[in-house]
Amino acid sequence: MSVTTIDPTTLPGRPCSLASALQLVGDRWCLLIIREVMFGNHQFKQIADNTGAPTDRLSARLKDLVAAGVLDHRRGPAASRKGYYFTEAGAELSVVTQALTQWGDKWVVTEPPLTREHHGHQMLMRAVCATCGEAVASDEVQREMTVPGWSIAGKTGDPS
Amino acid sequence: MSVTTIDPTTLPGRPCSLASALQLVGDRWCLLIIREVMFGNHQFKQIADNTGAPTDRLSARLKDLVAAGVLDHRRGPAASRKGYYFTEAGAELSVVTQALTQWGDKWVVTEPPLTREHHGHQMLMRAVCATCGEAVASDEVQREMTVPGWSIAGKTGDPS
Repeated sequence: MSVTTIDPTTLPGRPCSLASALQLVGDRWCLLIIREVMFGNHQFKQIADNTGAPTDRLSARLKDLVAAGVLDHRRGPAASRKGYYFTEAGAELSVVTQALTQWGDKWVVTEPPLTREHHGHQMLMRAVCATCGEAVASDEVQREMTVPGWSIAGKTGDPS
Repeated sequence: MSVTTIDPTTLPGRPCSLASALQLVGDRWCLLIIREVMFGNHQFKQIADNTGAPTDRLSARLKDLVAAGVLDHRRGPAASRKGYYFTEAGAELSVVTQALTQWGDKWVVTEPPLTREHHGHQMLMRAVCATCGEAVASDEVQREMTVPGWSIAGKTGDPS
């Protein structure tokens, strides 16, 4: 199952994969749905109760996520009923929800409502460069636009 | 400058730092604003042009992000004009936007509109456990709710 392609040059502003990705999963209910599927909750009722999403809204979002190729609606490994499961692409969104959860733990709540362990120790996610293994400071990343007429500063008057 | 605290037990559904964080930065314009500030674009007009956000909407979102403690509206290091700059908390959101950008690069666009390098090599972000340094597979993380009456599966009838 492939993911819906969204040409970033058709969106307003800077052509960017972030803007394209947000077209598919930029709604807050989407990320809460992804959290629940990551937690192993695959049934509509479970997802409704655990996200608190209004059921009509939830129903629409689930349909969108299936159409986008983020979720599959199918029978699970040991389930007789159909439920919502990650596609390969959907599973990779757990990095995004974990990063934002961790930011929330640190900055937005007084007491994390959920603890995470990894092989017996506290799990704290850290972003490193896959090539060199170093922690990534955002200001050490050199970015370049490949779309003519655009630079990191913005739209240039004279596409070359 | 501290971030607005949002008690996750006051939100619908599972008490979770993700839901609390989304209250502050869960709007798609918010993440595009964060992208621009990360790229070094601090002026209202730059942010408007590069995100494509309607100016009234953008104005409201920037005000919210300043009130939430994610951005500061102040003079920059070498700037005579005031602009929007990250607070310490805001800067840490770049992990979230980078993770979602990378997901978009891989799954949603056909050609990444932006390349990223880190000390001369291609930059690909990888999430590892800060304690043991291993790559984190979501199914190797043990999660536990600390809020009475809740488990990972959902709300339990009988808080203990």
